[in-house]
Amino acid sequence: MASVLLAVFVNGKFCKDPNMVSADDFFFPGLNKPGNTSNAQGSKVTPVNVNQLPGLNTLGISLVRIDYAPCGLNPPHTHPRATEVLVVVEGTLFVGFVTSNPADPNVKNKLFTKTLYPGDVFVFPEGLIHFQFNVGKTDAFVFAGLSSQNPGVITIANAVFGSDPPITLDVLTKAFQVDANVINALQAPFK
Amino acid sequence: MASVLLAVFVNGKFCKDPNMVSADDFFFPGLNKPGNTSNAQGSKVTPVNVNQLPGLNTLGISLVRIDYAPCGLNPPHTHPRATEVLVVVEGTLFVGFVTSNPADPNVKNKLFTKTLYPGDVFVFPEGLIHFQFNVGKTDAFVFAGLSSQNPGVITIANAVFGSDPPITLDVLTKAFQVDANVINALQAPFK
Amino acid sequence: MASVLLAVFVNGKFCKDPNMVSADDFFFPGLNKPGNTSNAQGSKVTPVNVNQLPGLNTLGISLVRIDYAPCGLNPPHTHPRATEVLVVVEGTLFVGFVTSNPADPNVKNKLFTKTLYPGDVFVFPEGLIHFQFNVGKTDAFVFAGLSSQNPGVITIANAVFGSDPPITLDVLTKAFQVDANVINALQAPFK
Amino acid sequence: MASVLLAVFVNGKFCKDPNMVSADDFFFPGLNKPGNTSNAQGSKVTPVNVNQLPGLNTLGISLVRIDYAPCGLNPPHTHPRATEVLVVVEGTLFVGFVTSNPADPNVKNKLFTKTLYPGDVFVFPEGLIHFQFNVGKTDAFVFAGLSSQNPGVITIANAVFGSDPPITLDVLTKAFQVDANVINALQAPFK
Amino acid sequence: MASVLLAVFVNGKFCKDPNMVSADDFFFPGLNKPGNTSNAQGSKVTPVNVNQLPGLNTLGISLVRIDYAPCGLNPPHTHPRATEVLVVVEGTLFVGFVTSNPADPNVKNKLFTKTLYPGDVFVFPEGLIHFQFNVGKTDAFVFAGLSSQNPGVITIANAVFGSDPPITLDVLTKAFQVDANVINALQAPFK
Amino acid sequence: MASVLLAVFVNGKFCKDPNMVSADDFFFPGLNKPGNTSNAQGSKVTPVNVNQLPGLNTLGISLVRIDYAPCGLNPPHTHPRATEVLVVVEGTLFVGFVTSNPADPNVKNKLFTKTLYPGDVFVFPEGLIHFQFNVGKTDAFVFAGLSSQNPGVITIANAVFGSDPPITLDVLTKAFQVDANVINALQAPFK
Repeated sequence: MASVLLAVFVNGKFCKDPNMVSADDFFFPGLNKPGNTSNAQGSKVTPVNVNQLPGLNTLGISLVRIDYAPCGLNPPHTHPRATEVLVVVEGTLFVGFVTSNPADPNVKNKLFTKTLYPGDVFVFPEGLIHFQFNVGKTDAFVFAGLSSQNPGVITIANAVFGSDPPITLDVLTKAFQVDANVINALQAPFK
Repeated sequence: MASVLLAVFVNGKFCKDPNMVSADDFFFPGLNKPGNTSNAQGSKVTPVNVNQLPGLNTLGISLVRIDYAPCGLNPPHTHPRATEVLVVVEGTLFVGFVTSNPADPNVKNKLFTKTLYPGDVFVFPEGLIHFQFNVGKTDAFVFAGLSSQNPGVITIANAVFGSDPPITLDVLTKAFQVDANVINALQAPFK
Repeated sequence: MASVLLAVFVNGKFCKDPNMVSADDFFFPGLNKPGNTSNAQGSKVTPVNVNQLPGLNTLGISLVRIDYAPCGLNPPHTHPRATEVLVVVEGTLFVGFVTSNPADPNVKNKLFTKTLYPGDVFVFPEGLIHFQFNVGKTDAFVFAGLSSQNPGVITIANAVFGSDPPITLDVLTKAFQVDANVINALQAPFK
Repeated sequence: MASVLLAVFVNGKFCKDPNMVSADDFFFPGLNKPGNTSNAQGSKVTPVNVNQLPGLNTLGISLVRIDYAPCGLNPPHTHPRATEVLVVVEGTLFVGFVTSNPADPNVKNKLFTKTLYPGDVFVFPEGLIHFQFNVGKTDAFVFAGLSSQNPGVITIANAVFGSDPPITLDVLTKAFQVDANVINALQAPFK
Repeated sequence: MASVLLAVFVNGKFCKDPNMVSADDFFFPGLNKPGNTSNAQGSKVTPVNVNQLPGLNTLGISLVRIDYAPCGLNPPHTHPRATEVLVVVEGTLFVGFVTSNPADPNVKNKLFTKTLYPGDVFVFPEGLIHFQFNVGKTDAFVFAGLSSQNPGVITIANAVFGSDPPITLDVLTKAFQVDANVINALQAPFK
Repeated sequence: MASVLLAVFVNGKFCKDPNMVSADDFFFPGLNKPGNTSNAQGSKVTPVNVNQLPGLNTLGISLVRIDYAPCGLNPPHTHPRATEVLVVVEGTLFVGFVTSNPADPNVKNKLFTKTLYPGDVFVFPEGLIHFQFNVGKTDAFVFAGLSSQNPGVITIANAVFGSDPPITLDVLTKAFQVDANVINALQAPFK
């Protein structure tokens, strides 16, 4: 029963007698229920990673369901430790990712985009900024696999303009080459 | 554009000028279409791995859709290089995996099973024998993530009783402690 | 002494004061003794992995000795987390492994076999089903290295036909395309 | 000479006869020269990774020198494939990184900051958004190690507001919860 | 805050409530101070790895400062778990590494050397024996990144001729093909 | 046949049409023959790694046979990329490894030794200096697994005192704190 031991026993938050391991340690229900998209972005990510499903421990993979209201957006974000592979179950999504900085500073980062329909699969390589936008007239949802048991999420707007404490105004005005009032506008939603 | 280079350029079968890389290299369509389950097992796996989607190269993850007719079975199999995390989209599946041999030869390998309904997630740890059986009255299908760009599949029946050339009768009768006619019955579907 | 710390201190079952670590933590005796092959398969695997030799912790390798009586068989099995490299010390072995499913469902899994004599080395790639059969008139034995400190073993017969509880008859008859009496015969040795 | 072979020969851009490998394949000069900080950010990163130094191939590490004019900023960015460890050689830097999204959406991402003086070391964990700001009255510079031969850099401003083609206005206004004129201001520096 | 958790919480010697993690957990001061080179080798390595800086845990990288008096030597040594990339800050160093044994026993291990000046970068591939020698008239110092949070150091002279207990004379005279008095001379500095 | 592809096709020196792969690609004969120990050390290592057995490619393991005449020595050496696990087949060996430098420079590197008899297993952790010495009256031999397809070997005497070109006398006299005539004696066997 070494595999089961490996998967479950090592987990710091979830140490149980190996003889007590059961099928439920590898099970998580509820991804049939749409996430609540009544929020500013009109989207909701429901994760199933090692924090929800201890049996994923040491196994290098996790899953999410993402729901989008019409015009809902999963805003630009990265996963610091995972590639994401997404399949559209319902709806029409405009998706994209931006490549990392080119060697030549005069060349821009490239945006790759695609409009996805049900059954379409798209890859967001590890650590790249990406987004999904519901451009259809109905709710949309996807399932996605991520190549880590604990992939992490960094929503750019939240991390850059909504952190606690805030990044100082000096840094942000210089970074984005804008006036303080622009930064204030970007920070306002988080106050 | 290092990430894109990394993802696509290394691929032996798919070497293109990095400047020619586009969104389509990270895209694969068609997982909305049910697989054809008109076969002996009543199931069909549609893979989206590095062989179908070159942009997955070096990224350690892939996806499958699996369809099951009523009473359809994804028969006992292993993935030699991947853990699988499955989410049920439609239908009712009886699923299970068998733990590896216990240290004590007098203790049996343990079977963990669960009946899954839409939205249920289940983990099949790397290399373990597992199956899914449609125990509902309707078609069923799932999406699953796998922790390798090239996970491999070994269907136990095919590999043990249907290989080319066949495993010799001496080996099989001894391995399974049965008479030759039992092995003949097991090999018959592959002749 | 960082390496020794790394090797021994991390081990969950074996945490000792680093100053107490000694050569014995990296030592395991007894592989000169033939394993007891008085069993149905006529073979015996004697493992030396992290469960027997705590100093292997974090080091990604382990060892086994395998003994075979005349006509003894190490029956078809997989290691879910390791490649095996075997060297024959004594005897004549007919060995083989079966490749994973080809992309084309009309093409069979390929069986690769070889008859090995003393001094012959053979590789069984990670996760593939393989076996060794003593086709000589004398006892045989081998040493093998495995690319994991905890490789795991899944004997196909035991996992598929001898699990606790058994895999249901519906699943097995459909998986192997045989009648219930064939499955009963396969399950009988485990009852 | 296996190590040297491993380090150099595998490199796609740099395949030479192993007998021709020399010390120069492991050498790169010039990090004593300050980078040119006459640019909008007042900072300059000089990388020494596998693209500049082929001998780093397969070895999982690289180096950078970063120069900062007074008030110069290495603006918020991530490395999609590496942790960074920095040591200040000259000057005074205000540095920080933002943690990934907390599980509770009502809890903000946390900003960790520190003012660094010569000889201070600071860690920016893999994939997290981070920055360095010269708050001293003189030029500053650092050396930093990165845990990848090809770590990649994603400058947030460039990737989100300066990509080619631009991310659509709909996505950006919704993502940042601001009016189009704010987004226009953010995109202006890249036009 | 998953990344921070990952970086700090796992550390055996440094387990704190994740809510208590702060910027100081990713900080280490003092590398501006020259190491004390008043010793037999005239050099001093000041490490900043996971033992000094707990925030490096799980992140696969560390840093050192190395100081050399005139004629000071960082004597031949290996890092059992890391590649080293060094940048000269001050001084002139003669550096080298020796390749591993060639396949042909009649071919010698190759020594690669280079004289380095400020700003020069040099790579010492994982596990290879290497050294740095101050051939200038002034103090020298470097910073170096290492591709492990816990790279380890094995100084050849100390490990081979200065261990506790000593390696037996029989082994050493045969290994180096010299008389006992030569070995005695080599062991003398450690007595 | 993905596994076979993975194992063989990637290999730079050994690219063949996957349909041409056969059992022989996973086979290597001859480890029953004692290595020729008529040399200064009275020992001989016969490797079976990816250079001899292309089927090991990507699989992270290899094997060696080592032979020792009476008083034969496998002299102090390291494997820069592998842990070694050895099993004695015949003879009596005095073996040892030296731990890496302790944090406290006043504490010596620790030597761990053991006298091994047939059937004894011993672990030499990755990158540590180790040796085996035949202290019996008969020939001895072992098999050993190594945790890399290309582990590398660095014999300390050869790399430090026998490289081409030689390490300079200044470096060696200072490193070992001995006179030039001692170094000359150590270099003599390689001239």
